[in-house]
Amino acid sequence: MQRYDESAAGRRWQQRLYVIIFEHDTPAGKAFDVVLLAVIALSVLVVLLDSVPSIHERHGAGLLAAEWVFTVLFTVEYAMRLAVVRSPLRYARSFYGLVDLLAILPTYVSVFLTGAQELIVIRSLRILRVFRVLKLPEYLAEAGYLSRAMRASRRKITVFVTTVLMLVLIIGSLMHLIEGPKSGFTSIPISIYWAIVTLTTVGYGDIAPQTPLGRMLASGVMIIGYAIIAVPTGIVTAELVNLRREYIRTVHCPVCGTEGHDDDARFCRVCGTELPAATATDIAG
Amino acid sequence: MQRYDESAAGRRWQQRLYVIIFEHDTPAGKAFDVVLLAVIALSVLVVLLDSVPSIHERHGAGLLAAEWVFTVLFTVEYAMRLAVVRSPLRYARSFYGLVDLLAILPTYVSVFLTGAQELIVIRSLRILRVFRVLKLPEYLAEAGYLSRAMRASRRKITVFVTTVLMLVLIIGSLMHLIEGPKSGFTSIPISIYWAIVTLTTVGYGDIAPQTPLGRMLASGVMIIGYAIIAVPTGIVTAELVNLRREYIRTVHCPVCGTEGHDDDARFCRVCGTELPAATATDIAG
Amino acid sequence: MQRYDESAAGRRWQQRLYVIIFEHDTPAGKAFDVVLLAVIALSVLVVLLDSVPSIHERHGAGLLAAEWVFTVLFTVEYAMRLAVVRSPLRYARSFYGLVDLLAILPTYVSVFLTGAQELIVIRSLRILRVFRVLKLPEYLAEAGYLSRAMRASRRKITVFVTTVLMLVLIIGSLMHLIEGPKSGFTSIPISIYWAIVTLTTVGYGDIAPQTPLGRMLASGVMIIGYAIIAVPTGIVTAELVNLRREYIRTVHCPVCGTEGHDDDARFCRVCGTELPAATATDIAG
Amino acid sequence: MQRYDESAAGRRWQQRLYVIIFEHDTPAGKAFDVVLLAVIALSVLVVLLDSVPSIHERHGAGLLAAEWVFTVLFTVEYAMRLAVVRSPLRYARSFYGLVDLLAILPTYVSVFLTGAQELIVIRSLRILRVFRVLKLPEYLAEAGYLSRAMRASRRKITVFVTTVLMLVLIIGSLMHLIEGPKSGFTSIPISIYWAIVTLTTVGYGDIAPQTPLGRMLASGVMIIGYAIIAVPTGIVTAELVNLRREYIRTVHCPVCGTEGHDDDARFCRVCGTELPAATATDIAG
Repeated sequence: MQRYDESAAGRRWQQRLYVIIFEHDTPAGKAFDVVLLAVIALSVLVVLLDSVPSIHERHGAGLLAAEWVFTVLFTVEYAMRLAVVRSPLRYARSFYGLVDLLAILPTYVSVFLTGAQELIVIRSLRILRVFRVLKLPEYLAEAGYLSRAMRASRRKITVFVTTVLMLVLIIGSLMHLIEGPKSGFTSIPISIYWAIVTLTTVGYGDIAPQTPLGRMLASGVMIIGYAIIAVPTGIVTAELVNLRREYIRTVHCPVCGTEGHDDDARFCRVCGTELPAATATDIAG
Repeated sequence: MQRYDESAAGRRWQQRLYVIIFEHDTPAGKAFDVVLLAVIALSVLVVLLDSVPSIHERHGAGLLAAEWVFTVLFTVEYAMRLAVVRSPLRYARSFYGLVDLLAILPTYVSVFLTGAQELIVIRSLRILRVFRVLKLPEYLAEAGYLSRAMRASRRKITVFVTTVLMLVLIIGSLMHLIEGPKSGFTSIPISIYWAIVTLTTVGYGDIAPQTPLGRMLASGVMIIGYAIIAVPTGIVTAELVNLRREYIRTVHCPVCGTEGHDDDARFCRVCGTELPAATATDIAG
Repeated sequence: MQRYDESAAGRRWQQRLYVIIFEHDTPAGKAFDVVLLAVIALSVLVVLLDSVPSIHERHGAGLLAAEWVFTVLFTVEYAMRLAVVRSPLRYARSFYGLVDLLAILPTYVSVFLTGAQELIVIRSLRILRVFRVLKLPEYLAEAGYLSRAMRASRRKITVFVTTVLMLVLIIGSLMHLIEGPKSGFTSIPISIYWAIVTLTTVGYGDIAPQTPLGRMLASGVMIIGYAIIAVPTGIVTAELVNLRREYIRTVHCPVCGTEGHDDDARFCRVCGTELPAATATDIAG
Repeated sequence: MQRYDESAAGRRWQQRLYVIIFEHDTPAGKAFDVVLLAVIALSVLVVLLDSVPSIHERHGAGLLAAEWVFTVLFTVEYAMRLAVVRSPLRYARSFYGLVDLLAILPTYVSVFLTGAQELIVIRSLRILRVFRVLKLPEYLAEAGYLSRAMRASRRKITVFVTTVLMLVLIIGSLMHLIEGPKSGFTSIPISIYWAIVTLTTVGYGDIAPQTPLGRMLASGVMIIGYAIIAVPTGIVTAELVNLRREYIRTVHCPVCGTEGHDDDARFCRVCGTELPAATATDIAG
């Protein structure tokens, strides 16, 4: 956490701005969050619309103007963030600092580099800024709950993904051998791509086996893919069931001590005392 | 709940009609439900058949006649419902009141507006009327059980869907940059559409990556999509496992007090006493 | 269960045949099962191969001969079954009796009716006969376990499927209105077909939205489909977790009384006594 | 486990080599593993790239040279493995021994047989060698956990897959009868292939029903497929939830005896004593 400099008396405004910009629990801070969220959404919408050829042709000038308005707004915000944090360098290097910079840089670069049109796409990374606003306590707890389940399943999922990757490599090689270039299996990497498309049950159909043997192998791959989707689901579910059980065991009423409160309970079901909030630290710690 | 006016003696018939039309526990009320369900199903079938060009050409006149028969029937029913409830305005404004109105309005409007043919499609919303009939106690309990699990997972699913939406936005932007208009990724919105089609493992194949880099990214997206489908499944399953555990803990025999009865048990396994029915209030309350 | 007639002394062979044909726990009975399973598999393979035009042209005569051999074999078996059961009529009317008859009838009918070629396809229903052989105790317990979980989820799954059907009806009607016949949404039934193809994440791609609004709605449908697949999975999983917990609670060592044995435990983990086998009645009862 | 010959004094190097090559817990052994993993990955990459026609044309010579370098390296390694194990024959016949041989053989054979180009694809089986390196203790425990859940679900999954196979056979036969060769359902085996593609929600779209009846049946198949994917997921999840519950019950602090430690706990939550590591034997035994 970056902290404002308390020593300078003239930095009162800096402290206030810090609370508004970086914190979420004051009315001003909440209002700032809502406005920022809206501006980010609008700026992303402009990038999306500008990428559609027919809209770009008709409304290109207007969208460019909007683009510059958003860029200036985000630049001012970025400058303010740099100004109010105690360690600007640390902020600039942080994940959110980099995202904030990436949100404004492409527009400026496109002025100097005429061919930087492609770079404009990077602006859509602005959407990542939404994460900053979503750092609201209610969502943090849930996100922490989910990400804790994910983290606990880390190694199991690594084993699973490694197995899947080896499977598609072997299946891809076999299909390249069986089907050959006629059905579109022109190389092993493309056959691996097909194996992934099939195993994950996406099934574009741009490449599909034509020979009886190839179709037989493909059928096997599909049934395997259908069955092993159970594995990651089972891993995450077992983790979530466990976390919930643990949580229910942990939280107890501060007055009468009753345990086993429902996950979304706010008050003790026996004596009605307000239960301690399930903070991000409690659940996701 | 709308109630009939008891003060007027002449409104006996109104009271009787109310019980038949709005309630489900008398023989007449049940018969009314079954007939209504059949009429709704038939009227929807007429709309479906009428939308098929070849059938419309051959049997258009007959279907139009049937359409008017159903419209008149539903109009009479709508008028009756308005007549028997205590507060007609409140009924007319309620969800079911609006659905009932939407079921008859399009046919009348099509007489006055010659170009209202398109509006006719709205008639298929008649199917929503089925929900009224499905308000049977047996289904209410189950539906309440499921919807309670859904409601309890509300915030977790919001976090999940938000993450998925940001993911497809970023993936779509990247694919637009990598693949370009040649493979059909003509704009970011279309690329986002492709990302959703891929991540959800639907995979139409109308837009598919052609370049090696695009296919590599697409493979990653598929494996991610395959893995994260585990998350909503895990959330809902953990919720259902928990609700069931709670239910089993809650219901106990009114005579001997034995707990832990099976979900579909009707009699106490120790003393054979009939267990209190798992009403909608108990489970879904 | 059909029983042999014990009164007739000359019917010893009938009793022996009954044990061989209908029961699974004698060496002769097991051998009969294995041979029958192989013959069924081969006869199905013949039907499959005969349906391939190129194979039918080259080996049609040979396959027809094999077809008759299997038909005669199954006819002999059918006659034997009729002969050894106490109530031939009851057997003939039972599910397996009908399947056994359907397995031989089409071949005979094709002799008299020259145009009965189409009927030949019914022969592939022979595969249903495999269920008879799979009536082995080990599989019965597992199948009973699964089907009990299914039966317990019956009403919940009905609610779910009803909701899905109404959803696809409304989505199909909307897409018919939005997309129109240009993109292949020529009628509401076809649009409903598309909605099912999309919601279940199958995604053939033969019909796909082309307009921006249609694609937006389709994206919503996909995300909904992706999310609600969690519901049946959650229902069945919660049921299975519950059944297993119950089972673990139920089985206890007949000597020392220890409970909580693992699902595949054969001996008591405390005193080593063999545990009572988890018969179909215990688990699936 | 193969063991080195301790009796020969001159075989000290053999013993040291054995530890480096076959074991994973010394620094030298770990370094060997990392290098081997990198070389395997590179060699597989060479096979993949060489299969792409355009890369093969331009860099064919370089890739062939790299191929020979890897083949020689793997040959030396294979020879070393044969030299240091006590029973070379047993090693050569083991799964890993065969994989190691398959990784080098195709390159040598291609020198003598000019038409053995196809055989080159077998080289991609080299990826299986990765499993040897992944025999690291951390992954073994997780893999053991997953494979134990799989093994425990063995019979349930057999019942499920058998049911699915019979289902696709019957659906395929029906669709062949309904749709006929016009829509691509030219034979029963191809119709079965379509049924598998549909039931597993892959949905290539190369074969798709065209008639109303066919589409109706296909819709039913999709909804069934969508519903029954819940079954394997439920089976594996119930198994994993159970294994975890058991594990939590089993591990207890060696000092204070506290039970119920979290799955990834390293220290007792009451007294802080380090918990006994969850070895492969404990979990996967």
